[in-house]
Amino acid sequence: MLEATIDASLLKDSIESLSVLVDEARVHISPEGIGVKAVDPANVAMVSFELQADAFDEYQAEESEIGLDLTRVLDILGVAEKTDKVKMKLEEDSRKLSISIGGISYTLTLLDPSTIRAEPRIPQLELPAEIVVNGKGFSRTIKAAEKISDHMSMGVEGETFFLEAEGDTDRMRQEMPRDELISITPGPARSLFSLDYLSDIAKPASKSNEVTLQIGNDFPIKINFEIAGGRGKVGYLLAPRIESE
Amino acid sequence: MLEATIDASLLKDSIESLSVLVDEARVHISPEGIGVKAVDPANVAMVSFELQADAFDEYQAEESEIGLDLTRVLDILGVAEKTDKVKMKLEEDSRKLSISIGGISYTLTLLDPSTIRAEPRIPQLELPAEIVVNGKGFSRTIKAAEKISDHMSMGVEGETFFLEAEGDTDRMRQEMPRDELISITPGPARSLFSLDYLSDIAKPASKSNEVTLQIGNDFPIKINFEIAGGRGKVGYLLAPRIESE
Amino acid sequence: MLEATIDASLLKDSIESLSVLVDEARVHISPEGIGVKAVDPANVAMVSFELQADAFDEYQAEESEIGLDLTRVLDILGVAEKTDKVKMKLEEDSRKLSISIGGISYTLTLLDPSTIRAEPRIPQLELPAEIVVNGKGFSRTIKAAEKISDHMSMGVEGETFFLEAEGDTDRMRQEMPRDELISITPGPARSLFSLDYLSDIAKPASKSNEVTLQIGNDFPIKINFEIAGGRGKVGYLLAPRIESE
Repeated sequence: MLEATIDASLLKDSIESLSVLVDEARVHISPEGIGVKAVDPANVAMVSFELQADAFDEYQAEESEIGLDLTRVLDILGVAEKTDKVKMKLEEDSRKLSISIGGISYTLTLLDPSTIRAEPRIPQLELPAEIVVNGKGFSRTIKAAEKISDHMSMGVEGETFFLEAEGDTDRMRQEMPRDELISITPGPARSLFSLDYLSDIAKPASKSNEVTLQIGNDFPIKINFEIAGGRGKVGYLLAPRIESE
Repeated sequence: MLEATIDASLLKDSIESLSVLVDEARVHISPEGIGVKAVDPANVAMVSFELQADAFDEYQAEESEIGLDLTRVLDILGVAEKTDKVKMKLEEDSRKLSISIGGISYTLTLLDPSTIRAEPRIPQLELPAEIVVNGKGFSRTIKAAEKISDHMSMGVEGETFFLEAEGDTDRMRQEMPRDELISITPGPARSLFSLDYLSDIAKPASKSNEVTLQIGNDFPIKINFEIAGGRGKVGYLLAPRIESE
Repeated sequence: MLEATIDASLLKDSIESLSVLVDEARVHISPEGIGVKAVDPANVAMVSFELQADAFDEYQAEESEIGLDLTRVLDILGVAEKTDKVKMKLEEDSRKLSISIGGISYTLTLLDPSTIRAEPRIPQLELPAEIVVNGKGFSRTIKAAEKISDHMSMGVEGETFFLEAEGDTDRMRQEMPRDELISITPGPARSLFSLDYLSDIAKPASKSNEVTLQIGNDFPIKINFEIAGGRGKVGYLLAPRIESE
């Protein structure tokens, strides 16, 4: 059971934070809020998403799991105006979701959760370095790196966070010392990542003032940020690529 | 003979209200104004268009008929600024139209009207229900329905106007009771229409505050609105589709 | 040797004034500023570009020549914000260029200038008529002409500058008498030009308030304008097409 009302733009941002990695998701609903854990089809990146009950204008729910076609829902949300509210209601049998936006009611047939890839177990990693950056700046650097290569290194040297891309003929490097960062916990770290994935992840992250990056030496990166004014959070785990040098 | 001056944006809107259904049109010119009646190539929709002489800044005309390549004229109007005036002058032999916009003069060779499909006779239909809606809202509902299906029903239940689309798995429905409508004359009505056509017609209609819809039971819909502050009007007649249930 | 700082938008405009004709260019660097002369691959148009040292915020240079991939540099400048400054530094061996924008550093491998087509000798032509027009209006007329044909005539009749395009069925003509021009030196002139080239050249020219056109009878046209508040200039020479009448 679910009856909930939420800002259209917040719901859109939430679904986009998932749809950059997967098209369909198992959404876990509980009285405390909703949550999704998913891994992309190529097993390169995972996302963990949580939105608390108090991020909604109204929220009433019992424990349940639904299968959501994210692309479909985003498509429907496309007609919502910025200030619209979205009302959602899960029908008794949990196979239909009613969505109401600005006077228009939709009834969506849900996917059978068992047909969607199971929730991944998200590994508990202790990563030596942690950097907090502005999402918009981070996104810009990734765009800059894409001009040069299809992968980018991130690492820490002393108290400086660096991002670096190397193409066949050209190179790009950005260095951010402590005073240009929101915060840094230095540690031995340098890993290489696919810019395709980073670019997808940077889209939702670019809306956040504080994006926390945790990195190690040839280790996955954790990219975390809050949404809904702290009443929700999104975390990505992206596997490194092997540096071929 | 024709010598006329008109706002570029009004001329553009006028031609677009025709070009959503046909590429070429016979334009009937008289001292009272200009008029077009046309039917789309698939015989599914008709348009009836009138613009009174007083919608023009200057207007002088004698009875005549010209063949206009609407796509071509729209293309040329593309360079006009919002505030530009368009001067039009029909040459003596009625085979050339001079158009002058912002200091640039065009001479267009007109089409032979006899090569363009004859004006349709627009059937006089008595439709039981009439609803007046805001054009922008109507257009938005059509966009919402297109996410679900390629056809949409419209009808009246009691004093409520409803719009409904049903896809393979999902449904959309909007209900507008009397107090959400500009006006309603209830009557037995429910018909199904192609969203392709409705979407084309909704483009020009979306600019109008008041769009009048007349519907019946498995009958064509009439969609009428004024342009040029009431000095012109556009009317569409769209055939229903048969509900396969 | 080169060490220079410049507005990102000025650098972008400068490179675009070249890239409309060529993808790669030999850039001549001297203590007085930078200069490029290039001819397009089809030998139809030439560009001559100069930017004085004082157009830069900082500028220090010794005589040298570098080979620049213009498309590549424009791509990289794509991430610059309007107000960004670009720092450029040529490495000792002149085969690498460091570019720094908003904290991001690029190292570009330069092209070997000897692999780029040699600088053309730009012919000294005495053209009888000279007209100074507003760049935005000129660009608009070219857009209007493109709706009609793929070539356009320009010429002078009495004290009136005219631009004319003729398609299979339609014509366009704009007449600009002395009082609609910034200035005119009348003379016998009428030549036909490719709109493809004119349209490319009009893009950078459209940003200039004063564009000087020099024309003759079936002669090339010279199109000149200043950039960087007079501290730079761009000149094009475009060969005429033969009027097939």
